[in-house]
Amino acid sequence: MSKVVLDVSVSLDGFTAGPNVRAEEPMGDGGERLHEWMGGEGPGGEADLDVRRQVDAAVGATVIGRRTFDLGLRPWGGTPWPGVPGFVVTHRTRQDLVGDNGGTFAFGGLEAAFRRAKEAAGGKDVLVLGADVARQALRAGLLDELWLHLVPVLLGGGTPLFAGEQVELVQEGTPVAGSASVTHLRYRVVRG
Amino acid sequence: MSKVVLDVSVSLDGFTAGPNVRAEEPMGDGGERLHEWMGGEGPGGEADLDVRRQVDAAVGATVIGRRTFDLGLRPWGGTPWPGVPGFVVTHRTRQDLVGDNGGTFAFGGLEAAFRRAKEAAGGKDVLVLGADVARQALRAGLLDELWLHLVPVLLGGGTPLFAGEQVELVQEGTPVAGSASVTHLRYRVVRG
Repeated sequence: MSKVVLDVSVSLDGFTAGPNVRAEEPMGDGGERLHEWMGGEGPGGEADLDVRRQVDAAVGATVIGRRTFDLGLRPWGGTPWPGVPGFVVTHRTRQDLVGDNGGTFAFGGLEAAFRRAKEAAGGKDVLVLGADVARQALRAGLLDELWLHLVPVLLGGGTPLFAGEQVELVQEGTPVAGSASVTHLRYRVVRG
Repeated sequence: MSKVVLDVSVSLDGFTAGPNVRAEEPMGDGGERLHEWMGGEGPGGEADLDVRRQVDAAVGATVIGRRTFDLGLRPWGGTPWPGVPGFVVTHRTRQDLVGDNGGTFAFGGLEAAFRRAKEAAGGKDVLVLGADVARQALRAGLLDELWLHLVPVLLGGGTPLFAGEQVELVQEGTPVAGSASVTHLRYRVVRG
């Protein structure tokens, strides 16, 4: 069964990007710090790479916020995972877009994006990209799990991961101590 | 050497108490959820009790915010740890107060409270209680470590642990998976 998963790197003060997100700095000021662990360097780096491999193996489709799409298209060079279809949440109807890496983007509303992504995932998981669309999914009861990569930095501002949602979660599995720059945590969303 | 430690339970959305903190509900609406792990119940509860024992063994003195003191004095029945001296950060000079459990409270400004607490700790650690005084200590470069008990709930509002500070941290040791209701993490503050 496809799960809908928010997989995201977040600072200890709860930001998924630093202040001043813009085309030249899609992660905002200082926000690239949140992705350093992905390089798998230093002691514990192998655990980080294992976590990345697990995510890569799990993803069957993605749901992507419109702003994340606009900012990500160029750095990704196509869909975030090559060949893995992306469903972009937007109010404007647009024709499907084939990315340079073979993945196809489709465009539509929130519920349709998740429905179509689950169909397309072929039993694998649907990964959600973008804090705003993730919060919408959380509020709409569409999110099954949260995979957090908790980075020990206080950015002091930026894009908050949460903003007023009230949700009970349950830990899944054991926290993974990666390199000094991250802890990997998994949570299941408890349905009300 | 005495370390200055902020040891605090925090929700996944970064609150150390729920909304509407008041005398009858010192943890605010829903905030008692953050302390459930301390009961050590359910699978993994023994790990939670181990963490508590480590904290209890480490504490030599406390620095306490004025508001936390006002709210805590009655539920604590004296100092937060029996016999362990507390230094309350306040602008108003007051005479020392001996709590019902044998611990003494002294009152003074921020820097004096930390200096006196380190002297009183006898080589053990100084624990900081109260989000506001903890942030003041962080900004003043007085905080050495953060011991977080990360509770998988989104409270949606309340007392934020962080509010605009920019700090780099380094993980210490390995995250401890406690019961389903908490993960225990330790971080060292990197001096700029």
